[in-house]
Amino acid sequence: MTVLHPFDPITPGEITLAVQVLEAAFPGVPLRYKRIDVNEPIKKDVIPYIEAERLGKPLPAKPARLLQALFHRRDTGAFYKALLNAETRKVIYAKELPKAVQGPVDVDEMIEIEQLCLKHPAVLAEVAKMQLPEGVTVCNDPWIYGTDDPKESRRLFQCYMYIVAVDHEQNNHYSLPCRFSPVFDGITHELVRMDYLPGGADAQTTETQPWKPVETVQYAHDLLTEPLRTDLKPYIVQQPEGASFSVNGNAVSWQKWRFRVGFTNREGLVLYNITYDGRNVFYRLSMSEMTVPYGDPRAPYHRKQAFDVGDVGFGITANQLSLGCDCLGHIKYFDGYRIDAQGKPVQLKNVICMHEQDNGLQHKHTNYRSGAATVVRNRQLVMQMICTVANYEYIFAFIFDQAANIELEVRATGILSTVPFDNQNGQTVPFGTNVGPNVLAPFHQHMFSFRIDPAIDGFKNTVYFEDSVPMPVDEASNPYGVGYTTEQTVLSTAGSAATDVARHRIFKIRNDDYINPVTYKPVAYKLQAAPSQMLLAPAGSFTSKRAEFATQPIWVTRYQDDELFAAGEFTNQSKISEGVEKWVQRKDATENEDIVLWHTFGLTHNPRIEDFPVMPMERISVMLRPDGFFTKNPALDVPASTQTFNKSTLHPEPAPACCGGEKSAKL
Amino acid sequence: MTVLHPFDPITPGEITLAVQVLEAAFPGVPLRYKRIDVNEPIKKDVIPYIEAERLGKPLPAKPARLLQALFHRRDTGAFYKALLNAETRKVIYAKELPKAVQGPVDVDEMIEIEQLCLKHPAVLAEVAKMQLPEGVTVCNDPWIYGTDDPKESRRLFQCYMYIVAVDHEQNNHYSLPCRFSPVFDGITHELVRMDYLPGGADAQTTETQPWKPVETVQYAHDLLTEPLRTDLKPYIVQQPEGASFSVNGNAVSWQKWRFRVGFTNREGLVLYNITYDGRNVFYRLSMSEMTVPYGDPRAPYHRKQAFDVGDVGFGITANQLSLGCDCLGHIKYFDGYRIDAQGKPVQLKNVICMHEQDNGLQHKHTNYRSGAATVVRNRQLVMQMICTVANYEYIFAFIFDQAANIELEVRATGILSTVPFDNQNGQTVPFGTNVGPNVLAPFHQHMFSFRIDPAIDGFKNTVYFEDSVPMPVDEASNPYGVGYTTEQTVLSTAGSAATDVARHRIFKIRNDDYINPVTYKPVAYKLQAAPSQMLLAPAGSFTSKRAEFATQPIWVTRYQDDELFAAGEFTNQSKISEGVEKWVQRKDATENEDIVLWHTFGLTHNPRIEDFPVMPMERISVMLRPDGFFTKNPALDVPASTQTFNKSTLHPEPAPACCGGEKSAKL
Repeated sequence: MTVLHPFDPITPGEITLAVQVLEAAFPGVPLRYKRIDVNEPIKKDVIPYIEAERLGKPLPAKPARLLQALFHRRDTGAFYKALLNAETRKVIYAKELPKAVQGPVDVDEMIEIEQLCLKHPAVLAEVAKMQLPEGVTVCNDPWIYGTDDPKESRRLFQCYMYIVAVDHEQNNHYSLPCRFSPVFDGITHELVRMDYLPGGADAQTTETQPWKPVETVQYAHDLLTEPLRTDLKPYIVQQPEGASFSVNGNAVSWQKWRFRVGFTNREGLVLYNITYDGRNVFYRLSMSEMTVPYGDPRAPYHRKQAFDVGDVGFGITANQLSLGCDCLGHIKYFDGYRIDAQGKPVQLKNVICMHEQDNGLQHKHTNYRSGAATVVRNRQLVMQMICTVANYEYIFAFIFDQAANIELEVRATGILSTVPFDNQNGQTVPFGTNVGPNVLAPFHQHMFSFRIDPAIDGFKNTVYFEDSVPMPVDEASNPYGVGYTTEQTVLSTAGSAATDVARHRIFKIRNDDYINPVTYKPVAYKLQAAPSQMLLAPAGSFTSKRAEFATQPIWVTRYQDDELFAAGEFTNQSKISEGVEKWVQRKDATENEDIVLWHTFGLTHNPRIEDFPVMPMERISVMLRPDGFFTKNPALDVPASTQTFNKSTLHPEPAPACCGGEKSAKL
Repeated sequence: MTVLHPFDPITPGEITLAVQVLEAAFPGVPLRYKRIDVNEPIKKDVIPYIEAERLGKPLPAKPARLLQALFHRRDTGAFYKALLNAETRKVIYAKELPKAVQGPVDVDEMIEIEQLCLKHPAVLAEVAKMQLPEGVTVCNDPWIYGTDDPKESRRLFQCYMYIVAVDHEQNNHYSLPCRFSPVFDGITHELVRMDYLPGGADAQTTETQPWKPVETVQYAHDLLTEPLRTDLKPYIVQQPEGASFSVNGNAVSWQKWRFRVGFTNREGLVLYNITYDGRNVFYRLSMSEMTVPYGDPRAPYHRKQAFDVGDVGFGITANQLSLGCDCLGHIKYFDGYRIDAQGKPVQLKNVICMHEQDNGLQHKHTNYRSGAATVVRNRQLVMQMICTVANYEYIFAFIFDQAANIELEVRATGILSTVPFDNQNGQTVPFGTNVGPNVLAPFHQHMFSFRIDPAIDGFKNTVYFEDSVPMPVDEASNPYGVGYTTEQTVLSTAGSAATDVARHRIFKIRNDDYINPVTYKPVAYKLQAAPSQMLLAPAGSFTSKRAEFATQPIWVTRYQDDELFAAGEFTNQSKISEGVEKWVQRKDATENEDIVLWHTFGLTHNPRIEDFPVMPMERISVMLRPDGFFTKNPALDVPASTQTFNKSTLHPEPAPACCGGEKSAKL
């Protein structure tokens, strides 16, 4: 049996083991499994282990391998969370959660609700009213229900229905939304209510009417009416000597970086124990949460607020990536595992890809006297995951470079969530964009929480921000008024902070115990944040109460085990969040302590029509960059960019006209 | 003789011609040439010509080909500007400019001053005082003088001196700045003054002392003491069928884009007449100006404020690019020309490169039911120029993609401008960073002005901004408070505007005469701006008065010929700017008019020690994106990303341990 590292993702054997342990603990009780995953290892137990690894010392005992389980009793519907010890095969606890706590949606449940909806007589009755032509059918996307009632404790699904006008595996049903939307109880499978959707600009609804056919706006190549471009020539990345990385299990080495690739059902890709040239840099990096509230004020859309991490999970929605489609060059894939409802492990194949890319120049200087130039390219290592959450896609990449930078790049793509709208008479709404005939894409926001658990030369760090401000005009110290300086503000107590473009505010993470021998300042990394509009929904709205992390761009908390998710553990139908905004209330000291930095950034996405029927990616980038961590540019030792190494090709010049047009050009 | 297009850059023949015309106009007067370049063609004369081209109609008469000349009379030193007609070989005007107007620095002048400085007895006397060891010499960078005296009218150069400890063509003299700095008159060649530089944290200066040797911090590979990395494997971009672009003279076609590559001595790369799928998009895009004020308050550093476009020119400082060094893949180069002091044309070879690059995914959607995915990669066309302005490098790239986006990417790299500083006893300053022994890199800003002359479906456009704001809570229209909408503000009169991250402010350029048939809004492009800290120097300081464009991020002016440069025509030693801030005072109507949008963005650069001795690039990106310009994603017709086309390689998996470690893995 493979020896597992504390940061290794769950194995199929562990899933099977957990099921055995739980079945023994609940004899005769039918269980419906929702999730089994590795429980985040206890940090204080892991640190001695990874420090011994880093320093090449004898390894201490491994921390306990704990597994976490979420499941329902099929007999009572009760929802449980259990913690298991994988080595002792013991249940540490198995607790029934309060009735109002809803676990995330799982894959089997999604399919189950979808099928239930399609077959329900009330739904079929509505479909009949549409009088669809021969061959035209319907489908539905079960949506997490959102929240508008503090007393609601049922597990609910809002099914948004669409017309399928073309029988094709990539038909874009989002182009043709229906005007009714059944709500189901996910446990009892009862129809709770038939919601009707507004047809015009206001909230007014009508009974389901016969469908007035309009064209589907399609994205799939097979279904386009226009011809494809024929003038795009191949562009092939070759790495004849293979990749510059090496992999041992989930441990990756590339240039001076070392880290471990983690994978959880909830977050998907997680990076652990990131070191550069043998020095600690980050303990754990992850996309902790994301919420997507919609700006369409009309019922039932006011409940459209997905938490794609907490309600669903980027791990279970991660795409199986394909060679030559999702990345170029020399690709290494990593798999993950999830459990199905029956308790069987399901392989999530190729859900993470790793490859190198060239990103232009990293540094260059030409001595203008001699013309002699030093040119170094910016080779990068990309760890990528692509998640499909129903209609939408997110492409997440952690990008390492040779100058000790780590970039988190998010690309938003996929299909807009649409609603029906009678727009053929020139009608518009102030909270959305017409994107096709009788279809509207409402405004919405994507609010991400990037969780940064730093280890800048050690596990006790301090977060501060630095503003650039004019120096006061002063005859002695600033006689011409042009001087400027920086002001530092230490976040010495857990709390939040704002970004400030006008003051060029930069957030830094430093280790007060290590002073840079040249700058005489503590060693540090800076967060090159993505200043963004915060949540538009006002304080007091459910949207805001459920996602307080998205009301401030920066949060600092003192590290505690089990505080991994910015909006709390259970976000599905949550009434309020139980995350960073709660943890900062402890007012923990955070100066030179084991701290966590949370960065909320986002995209206020008022759709362009060009974002339909599939959206050209919108890119957001956040970077972690050394700032006084080294004593000079750490990429100086990267070899020069040369033609011998890079083998570029000169574009052939046309033969001069005087030589006749027939003669082909020579290089 | 080649038939020139109105947007073609100057040819060597035209330079020779201009010299002949000027010498005939100034018989017997010795002239010293500074610059001869094409005069920007008169827009109203060009439009009928390029519209006929675009629409395939018979071409009207070409606009007059005008050349512009800047030169000194060697006898009097007087500075002239002349306008010539290249076809009639006539001088339209030749005017002597006021004494206080200083033209830009030219290449010959720079070398002249450098040599003058090195040989001057007063400089040699200071060098002697340093008592440099055998083999250690000095060099200098002549700096534009900046401004601190409204009455100064001499042409001045401030020479910053450095110790050259290592005789190598890439020695980093910026690591060892001297403590004296002579000022020369550029016309009379007289030593105006010997400035002494502070040695400590305050402005106090001392007489030149014997040098206390410290190590040079080197960047060149030859001079590094540490070994180079040996684990970076080749990464080769192959385009076996060649590039997807085609070139005819300076006209480029790529995918659905058509444009003309311009080149001026001042701006370097300029793009003209950009159309997409036969529709007008932009008339002219250029980097109009850049200023770099320093935040070190001490004399003489208060005068350090370079205008790299106006004072020097990105055209004349553009690097000769090399195959396989500056870009990968299949490369096309463009040349430029400048004049030398004697009137001879000088070729600026390979100053612009054009190539394609792969930038990951452009769009993807997976139908989670069928698993069927549409994946399209983001192929880009890059137009790149790299400029060396003494110590510093800028990499400018206009990047076109298949979804009708244009990105302006700026990468800042090169070597920090340094000053001497006794820092071996733990001393620091609040306006700079110690970057090596006895060397300090002061804080500074890089403020860019991106000039956007739009032609969104025509030459009359309107700029407006759009903020995302909560809708008021209202029982009927927004009962749950989650609704949000946008507010539009039209810039109907020439003026400036602020960015606003908290309101997600977006600037758009629309054509009120063309309404999108689906959105019912005017066709538009949006500017994805780079919200930045504006100029830190206070109003009233010379720094601010000379660069008012850098006090506001957005300016809109009504188009006028000759209004190309945000800080005005002559920036060198300017007392006040004569640019956008003047032009907006006309209060021209700018709604549905021929307008220009100017975007100031920047980098407050408080150096990291990692930015020395050569800086890992810092990237800033600004994008122009269609927003209601099309009726759907314009990249839908880009063929799918497939392994057949892309030919990626799977990373070999290690053989399972049970089979023996010797056996090599199979794919």
